[in-house]
Amino acid sequence: MNSPLLPPLLGLFGMIAAFIVYLLVMKYPDGEDKVKKIGDQIHSGALAFMKTEYKYLLVFISVLVVLAYLFLDLQTAIAVVVGAACSSLAGFIGMYAATKANVRTATAAQQDGAAAALSVSFYGGSVMGLCVASLGLIGLGGLYYFYAAGGNPQVHALEGFGMGASVVALFSRVGGGIFTKSADVGADLVGKIEAGIPEDDPRNPGVIADNVGDNVGDVAGMGSDIFESYCGAMIASIAIAYTMYMANKGIDSDAVATALNLMSLPLGLSSIGLIASIVGIFIVKLQSSKAPASALRSGTLLAPVIFIVMAHFLIQSMGLDIAVLWCVVSGAVGGVLIGLITEYYTGGKPVQEIAESGETGAATVLISGLSVGMQSVVIPILILATIVLVSTTIAGGASMPAVYGVGIAAVGMLSTVGITMAIDAYGPVADNAGGIAEMAGMGKEVRDITDSLDELGNTTAAIGKGFAIGAAALAALAIISAYSAQLTIAHGTDFTLSLTDPRVLAGMFIGICIPFLISSITMKAVGDAAFEMINEIRRQFKEIPGLMEGTADPDSEKCVEIATEAALKKMMLPGVIAVAMPAVVGFGLGAIALGGMLAGGLLGCVAMALFMANAGGAWDNAKKYVEKGNLGGKGSDTHAAVVVGDTVGDPFKDTSGPAMNILINVMAMVSLVISSLLTPTGIFF
Amino acid sequence: MNSPLLPPLLGLFGMIAAFIVYLLVMKYPDGEDKVKKIGDQIHSGALAFMKTEYKYLLVFISVLVVLAYLFLDLQTAIAVVVGAACSSLAGFIGMYAATKANVRTATAAQQDGAAAALSVSFYGGSVMGLCVASLGLIGLGGLYYFYAAGGNPQVHALEGFGMGASVVALFSRVGGGIFTKSADVGADLVGKIEAGIPEDDPRNPGVIADNVGDNVGDVAGMGSDIFESYCGAMIASIAIAYTMYMANKGIDSDAVATALNLMSLPLGLSSIGLIASIVGIFIVKLQSSKAPASALRSGTLLAPVIFIVMAHFLIQSMGLDIAVLWCVVSGAVGGVLIGLITEYYTGGKPVQEIAESGETGAATVLISGLSVGMQSVVIPILILATIVLVSTTIAGGASMPAVYGVGIAAVGMLSTVGITMAIDAYGPVADNAGGIAEMAGMGKEVRDITDSLDELGNTTAAIGKGFAIGAAALAALAIISAYSAQLTIAHGTDFTLSLTDPRVLAGMFIGICIPFLISSITMKAVGDAAFEMINEIRRQFKEIPGLMEGTADPDSEKCVEIATEAALKKMMLPGVIAVAMPAVVGFGLGAIALGGMLAGGLLGCVAMALFMANAGGAWDNAKKYVEKGNLGGKGSDTHAAVVVGDTVGDPFKDTSGPAMNILINVMAMVSLVISSLLTPTGIFF
Repeated sequence: MNSPLLPPLLGLFGMIAAFIVYLLVMKYPDGEDKVKKIGDQIHSGALAFMKTEYKYLLVFISVLVVLAYLFLDLQTAIAVVVGAACSSLAGFIGMYAATKANVRTATAAQQDGAAAALSVSFYGGSVMGLCVASLGLIGLGGLYYFYAAGGNPQVHALEGFGMGASVVALFSRVGGGIFTKSADVGADLVGKIEAGIPEDDPRNPGVIADNVGDNVGDVAGMGSDIFESYCGAMIASIAIAYTMYMANKGIDSDAVATALNLMSLPLGLSSIGLIASIVGIFIVKLQSSKAPASALRSGTLLAPVIFIVMAHFLIQSMGLDIAVLWCVVSGAVGGVLIGLITEYYTGGKPVQEIAESGETGAATVLISGLSVGMQSVVIPILILATIVLVSTTIAGGASMPAVYGVGIAAVGMLSTVGITMAIDAYGPVADNAGGIAEMAGMGKEVRDITDSLDELGNTTAAIGKGFAIGAAALAALAIISAYSAQLTIAHGTDFTLSLTDPRVLAGMFIGICIPFLISSITMKAVGDAAFEMINEIRRQFKEIPGLMEGTADPDSEKCVEIATEAALKKMMLPGVIAVAMPAVVGFGLGAIALGGMLAGGLLGCVAMALFMANAGGAWDNAKKYVEKGNLGGKGSDTHAAVVVGDTVGDPFKDTSGPAMNILINVMAMVSLVISSLLTPTGIFF
Repeated sequence: MNSPLLPPLLGLFGMIAAFIVYLLVMKYPDGEDKVKKIGDQIHSGALAFMKTEYKYLLVFISVLVVLAYLFLDLQTAIAVVVGAACSSLAGFIGMYAATKANVRTATAAQQDGAAAALSVSFYGGSVMGLCVASLGLIGLGGLYYFYAAGGNPQVHALEGFGMGASVVALFSRVGGGIFTKSADVGADLVGKIEAGIPEDDPRNPGVIADNVGDNVGDVAGMGSDIFESYCGAMIASIAIAYTMYMANKGIDSDAVATALNLMSLPLGLSSIGLIASIVGIFIVKLQSSKAPASALRSGTLLAPVIFIVMAHFLIQSMGLDIAVLWCVVSGAVGGVLIGLITEYYTGGKPVQEIAESGETGAATVLISGLSVGMQSVVIPILILATIVLVSTTIAGGASMPAVYGVGIAAVGMLSTVGITMAIDAYGPVADNAGGIAEMAGMGKEVRDITDSLDELGNTTAAIGKGFAIGAAALAALAIISAYSAQLTIAHGTDFTLSLTDPRVLAGMFIGICIPFLISSITMKAVGDAAFEMINEIRRQFKEIPGLMEGTADPDSEKCVEIATEAALKKMMLPGVIAVAMPAVVGFGLGAIALGGMLAGGLLGCVAMALFMANAGGAWDNAKKYVEKGNLGGKGSDTHAAVVVGDTVGDPFKDTSGPAMNILINVMAMVSLVISSLLTPTGIFF
């Protein structure tokens, strides 16, 4: 397991597995002409968006590559390209498969029933999960082989991989988030409220854009998001272990040997995580014909168990202190716990209470939803605090850098990303299948199946979201620790991040502002983009004769175009702020202030991410609860009230909230990349 | 100016000034019988609430006093009592005067016109302003004379004063906030929406409670809030200066002399600030007969100028480095700037945009308001960061502890609290006068005058709120710095608050949760209390014959009782959490983790305070903007949409938001008080 060639090779093996799963998806029929046509529209709309998005990204990444080459070195520049390419590819392939699986899920529901439909949608999600894990191992593992193995001093270039990946993730998440919610809000407000037609009605010109949005936002965006945390956790752990190597080189040969092992551990853990994920996916496949829901559950729960058992042997075989396994376990268990807490807040008693508060109107729905969102922040963050205390105590006691424990906990949480992501991406596939069934008029029975899949998907998506936030937070903390460790190696005690240092305090104040600023910008972006969408849909209803009667087709492409343009235009500012702030603060106020900024940013991003994601999820499910016939059901005043909550929750949970995870990771990764150029004190203070 | 007796004596002088201003209020007639009766109802309702609240507080404070006596010393126990008493007294007298001034403002508007009405309401607010400043000087100045003057080692007992004051403030703010918003939301939802009667209609049983709420929340609560920051800033500065004294005692006699001067500077500055405030109030009185609005402005702007000029002479006469004046100036200017930014976000273009988004419904009002609130966080916090950098650089360069600069900046910001608070408390008096005019049917002309006063009051209140948050943040930062300085004196390098220390990180994670938890609890409390209120008002409309026809009186007292009971019951939990958390973390995880918790708490509290206060203020004014006839005016769909925003904003801006300021100060002050009992490492980590 010590050969540095194994991870990329396993990654290739994973890609083959992904391809096999893709073929499994394609084996299912894509259905009647009408269904096929809708599926094609969604597929080509999503592809068109991605194509345009990648053009923008190419420009932005090119600038970063040139800067990296000029101020750092060729290796870093190359790594930025590889990181950006792998992240884009993971998102693209995953979304490609998802837009093939959605229509096949609908058709399978019609022709073969619920079990088959679950299988297709889960396979669709699995392609994404396997690609994320495999491309991480190929890309990062490949670079590790060339730049890092054996204590190669070019190891710092790996950070470029992280920066490339995280910048792509930010743009995909924010761009996709704006796209999907402007289409969703626009289609709902005009279609459901003004025109009085049902959700996903084929006459609504915005419906295709809405379904495209699910794919570019929830599939491609989510994929790049997790990819970035997955690689970030590994890179940070490697960087921390490398500082141990540097500190002991020529002094203590035992410590050097341990450090080298610690450097190769993260990729080793992720490699066996991929194997465990593939086994997990296989378990789901075997069982899915009998009880679909329990199949998903046993796959998700067994994969981490298999992973931990294998991790035990890996750590032992490398001659490392077995205590480090407990860091892995704390991360893996913590991730599951955070997911379950998220499920409670977005699906349990709090949701019912929000729905009930709808009886006194929209205002009380909003108040109680905000209150639930705020409360939901507490336990997950306390779990994170516990992981930090436990993992650092263990690592510190096992003669390795204490913060290495945090990195390994993050790696542990993310190692089985193959199956976690599969189950997460399954949700939007099922959701899309439901949309297609509605648009194609496939009947109530089909819709019932897709609805039940969707409901299960909402639960898994909620768990996945909580997990993503927790993992991103730990990954970011590990990256920040690596940043601090590198500067301490370079500047000794001149670099101390003391809370009583005014530069740290000022940095922390600046840091806490950034998540609020980015949330504000992205919320407003959705509002503005939705406004354009509303006008276009209104125009089509007015100007296209026969549209309402169903005798003429809407111009869906135009809506996709509008959403694309708005999303790409409006994703630039948050992206630029995220990349520029570390440089501005780092050079202007110095590396110490930048350390403070990252700490403040981390706190703000984690709290806001949980607050917004969970408030949004809870409002969404409160609406669904009423729509199931509770408290007066559809059409009642209570329903109108919870719909307002759901609409407010849309940008919360699918645009601004998810941007927070990546925001802190981008800022941390950029800081890590530029850390060698910084001095403790800046130009101004 | 060096005599430690001067500040309490000046405080007594200030109380006399307050009494004279009170007599000026009472000189005005309280009007016709009907007006008088309503005024009496509000006055006695407010008094009844305060009486019950103080009973609860007595129990809670008694527990703290006993604990302080058992674990610390008698001096601290006494100081807790004095602090709690002064804070309660400031709130009580201020509210007493305000409930005398409101009815006289309405009558003055009827009999003598706008200028006279402005005078009465401003005098009403001035009593509060002067009491806050004077009682601070009497209480803290008196204790300083006994415990601290000349380097008396009992100086630490002053922290007990801060704890007593801040605990009272938290209960008053939270209790008052829940009272006022449950009554407001309840009265509005049943009265305006269900019964279709106007705001402040005398038939509505909840209207008296609503007006009582303005006094207990916005007047008494605000008074205790500012009192606590005002004293907290002084106590922290004294404590920091005392650590300089301790570090140099017997080593460097020059430094000891400087330290003693630095210890007496805060009370000296506040003393001249009181004089400047009295002069400012006098200026307003002189000019108010001509142009009321500009009179307020010139008073507010001239007082700080006078204060800074006098501060220059004070610092010079004490032989201190004149550079410290710039710390004072940075605080005073920063406070004004934060106020102006707040005014922009709650009154400028953003408000209009929120109102316009009402054209597409309530959801877009909510989205844009949340976005505005989030954005409004940025510049004020950047101003705070600048104050921190500037003031510490100055102080560090003038051979005093760098963080002393932050303390003095906070003192500088708060010194002219006499007039700032006067103008802030004027708003609710004018608001109440409008309510009384409506209830007593005093006619459109009177109502127009009170409306214009109220509008001006909203602006000054917005500025005051921004100022209060900024001041509280700086005060809290100074207290946290004092905490850290004391533990460093006691434990040397064993106590280091490094961002790379896992205990600090875990503490910061815990800290960021607390503002979210308390916000969630208080939001939910308002919702629950409003629900009870709604049921009672509905019951009265149904069961009291002739109520809707105006032939029978509503049972207003019952509504006051319900709001009182709900507020007091629900204020306990947040209070207990705020007081207990520092002890739990401090003893459980140690003083280092507690330092992290305070830093995380500070960031979260400041950001959430600005977010919630400004979003709420912006929604409120967006509603008023529509009600003035814009975008369709009252009764339009847009109006209905902005009303939802306003209702959501109510607990944001008047309950949860204002609780944040005090929350961090309570936690910091409790930590400071128990710091001598703590060790760097706790029981568990």
